[in-house]
Amino acid sequence: MSTFWCERAELPGGIVDAVRITTEGGVITAVEPGVPPGGERRLPGVVLPGFADAHSHAFHRALRGRTHDGGGTFWTWRERMYAVAARLDPDSYLALARATYAELALGGVTTVGEFSYLHHAPGGRRYADPNAMSEALVQAAAEAGVRLTLLDACYLAGGLGPDGHASPDPVQQRFSDGSAEAWAERVAALPARPGLRIGAAVHSVRAVPRADLPVVAAAAGPLHVHLSEQPAENDACLAFYGRTPTELLADAGVLGPRTTAVHAVHLTAGDRELLAASGTAVCACPTTEADLADGTGPFRELLDAGCPLVLGTDQHVTADLLGEAQALEAGARLATGERGRFRPAELVAALTGHAALGWPDAGRLAAGCRADLVAVALDTPRTAGADPAQIALVAGAADVRTVVVDGRVVVDDGRHVLGDVGAQLREAVEPLWT
Amino acid sequence: MSTFWCERAELPGGIVDAVRITTEGGVITAVEPGVPPGGERRLPGVVLPGFADAHSHAFHRALRGRTHDGGGTFWTWRERMYAVAARLDPDSYLALARATYAELALGGVTTVGEFSYLHHAPGGRRYADPNAMSEALVQAAAEAGVRLTLLDACYLAGGLGPDGHASPDPVQQRFSDGSAEAWAERVAALPARPGLRIGAAVHSVRAVPRADLPVVAAAAGPLHVHLSEQPAENDACLAFYGRTPTELLADAGVLGPRTTAVHAVHLTAGDRELLAASGTAVCACPTTEADLADGTGPFRELLDAGCPLVLGTDQHVTADLLGEAQALEAGARLATGERGRFRPAELVAALTGHAALGWPDAGRLAAGCRADLVAVALDTPRTAGADPAQIALVAGAADVRTVVVDGRVVVDDGRHVLGDVGAQLREAVEPLWT
Repeated sequence: MSTFWCERAELPGGIVDAVRITTEGGVITAVEPGVPPGGERRLPGVVLPGFADAHSHAFHRALRGRTHDGGGTFWTWRERMYAVAARLDPDSYLALARATYAELALGGVTTVGEFSYLHHAPGGRRYADPNAMSEALVQAAAEAGVRLTLLDACYLAGGLGPDGHASPDPVQQRFSDGSAEAWAERVAALPARPGLRIGAAVHSVRAVPRADLPVVAAAAGPLHVHLSEQPAENDACLAFYGRTPTELLADAGVLGPRTTAVHAVHLTAGDRELLAASGTAVCACPTTEADLADGTGPFRELLDAGCPLVLGTDQHVTADLLGEAQALEAGARLATGERGRFRPAELVAALTGHAALGWPDAGRLAAGCRADLVAVALDTPRTAGADPAQIALVAGAADVRTVVVDGRVVVDDGRHVLGDVGAQLREAVEPLWT
Repeated sequence: MSTFWCERAELPGGIVDAVRITTEGGVITAVEPGVPPGGERRLPGVVLPGFADAHSHAFHRALRGRTHDGGGTFWTWRERMYAVAARLDPDSYLALARATYAELALGGVTTVGEFSYLHHAPGGRRYADPNAMSEALVQAAAEAGVRLTLLDACYLAGGLGPDGHASPDPVQQRFSDGSAEAWAERVAALPARPGLRIGAAVHSVRAVPRADLPVVAAAAGPLHVHLSEQPAENDACLAFYGRTPTELLADAGVLGPRTTAVHAVHLTAGDRELLAASGTAVCACPTTEADLADGTGPFRELLDAGCPLVLGTDQHVTADLLGEAQALEAGARLATGERGRFRPAELVAALTGHAALGWPDAGRLAAGCRADLVAVALDTPRTAGADPAQIALVAGAADVRTVVVDGRVVVDDGRHVLGDVGAQLREAVEPLWT
């Protein structure tokens, strides 16, 4: 048993002062407001539930501050990303993912949803363990002290043109299992263990032909899909199938309450209705969607229609999920000319979307829930003076002081238990560029 | 004389390793690349020139994290801002501005451009020293260790309607000198001193009738003006004058090479031509323009047309000028679907726009320039792995380690010489809300 005394905590009903939280075996067993501090571990500032990064590509972290020199588009950026992908092996992937997940933990993330598509060795050769790259991610998360939902992505085709799907190019061969059945067989061989959920992903309608979609949809666990990030994807899908990507996914049974559509930027009104009617969640990745010049998605409209809304850091432009919440709100303000498009409590809900990663018992400070706590300082230059109830619109990752995952303190006074995360990131990233 | 050894420095031609910078009397006397470290003060990471915050309203810092609860618009936000303005006196203004300027310095700002319009006591009563509020700002900057350009704003009218300008409301009476001539007389009485430039500002076409514009334009020093931040301002100006705000300012002689137009969001093609042809600079305040749902200005187009482009933190949504540069670029990407709309060196130029504040000898690491240095760490979780030449797209205020202003170390290892800036901000802000 361990106990924490929170100066203030964001409980399901709002901010409450002087809250004692008791945990046992990684689960919250009691939440008592209005209790004076005693011998508990004290958490000053405001304590929020742990955050869920619903969309991570760990290895994209290596691209931060490396692709801003030449203009271009999403598609030219992708060439740089492929060049990094081509250089990774299970060991370098482990080092990079571990440091990336530790960086996410420093910003309050307690569950990472890793949308994983870098499966095989160069040329598509299988590693001795065909899940060696997945195992690297599992080990990385365990060592970084965060839970992992491995969204193992099916990626079969190299793109969608007027004549249908192309074969994978040399880099994309690392992503492909050759067939949806082979993909399913490999995923099924990955053993379960504590702190891990195994889910599935359709990389995109570019990478998975229609006939293969039901195989991926039949997999157990959370199901994620990149959806309508770029207009070119919509154009190609419409030209070949005569349907939008959302319509195609709906036809193939990919949408539904255990599905999360990532990006969902370029949607028709009909697409929005299909997502909402099916109970599909939507994952906004606002800093990536700005960085890659994707556009601003209709996230307020989707939430109003009934889609659960979650957040992802995606390519890790920053590893700051609070920053994603702020960029979500900023984009909605710019699109409408109105302020306060998301209430602070709605942003906290989006920050804590563990259910979209298969952890419905996380993300609330309530008895019976996982003991994930994020203490945000209210006395830093950035946060000083703010109303604690509005902290999600103010604080950044650097203001996070303590992070508890399943009852374990992973970040203590702004330091990760793994030590110097900056040094570990440099060691992991720099060799990929030399 | 003091000397600094920079692991890397952003010189006018680009990033150079191992640079010794010698200063004397606050001025750089020598810049020597490729020198091994000796007894100099060592600055690890990458050293940039000092930043210029070209548009600050210091007292708006009190609104951070305080206005996100009720939706609304720019205009409802302004009601909250007026409520804070109504409570300030010279002492509380000094405390708030000093802590705000210290926060800006922590993020690398070495010159603040304070667009000042809170001049008088409640009801418009004059303080014993009619410049008491200006003196508070001057003292605040001196104590926070930054240079100040006081852009003393003329604010005569309470708004512009179909029948012309309204009288100031009770709060706005604090902003008004009663006439442009009285404004000019008060400004002229403010004594010069080191580290201070005195400039002028037209608050906006809402607040200064056409007949009074030439009086403000005749003042010496830099001249700033809020321009076309909200569509309603344009509509009112067009309805009453039959001209856009830009056209009106051009007619009245307000535009020109010593003028900076702040916001410049809602412009016609003709407006852009007037700004460029006159050599007017443009100040983008991207986080404020998102927070207040103003819109995204045509900043790339204005820069291409020849307008110098600078940055401001304005209402201090954050006090992170690097974040403004990143929001500028993000907005341009979202507006165009293309990446790299501003080259990294263009963003550094926008960060260092001291010339728009009357300090043309600041903002470059070169002999003869003011000795303003900003050392940004390359080993934090946020910056690790980035190309130093792209650091303006990556780092945040929390990554700034050392700040030198006019040769004086104001921020040392992330700590301001004033001490605990977070505590000082809390002490200044919280009484305004109780």
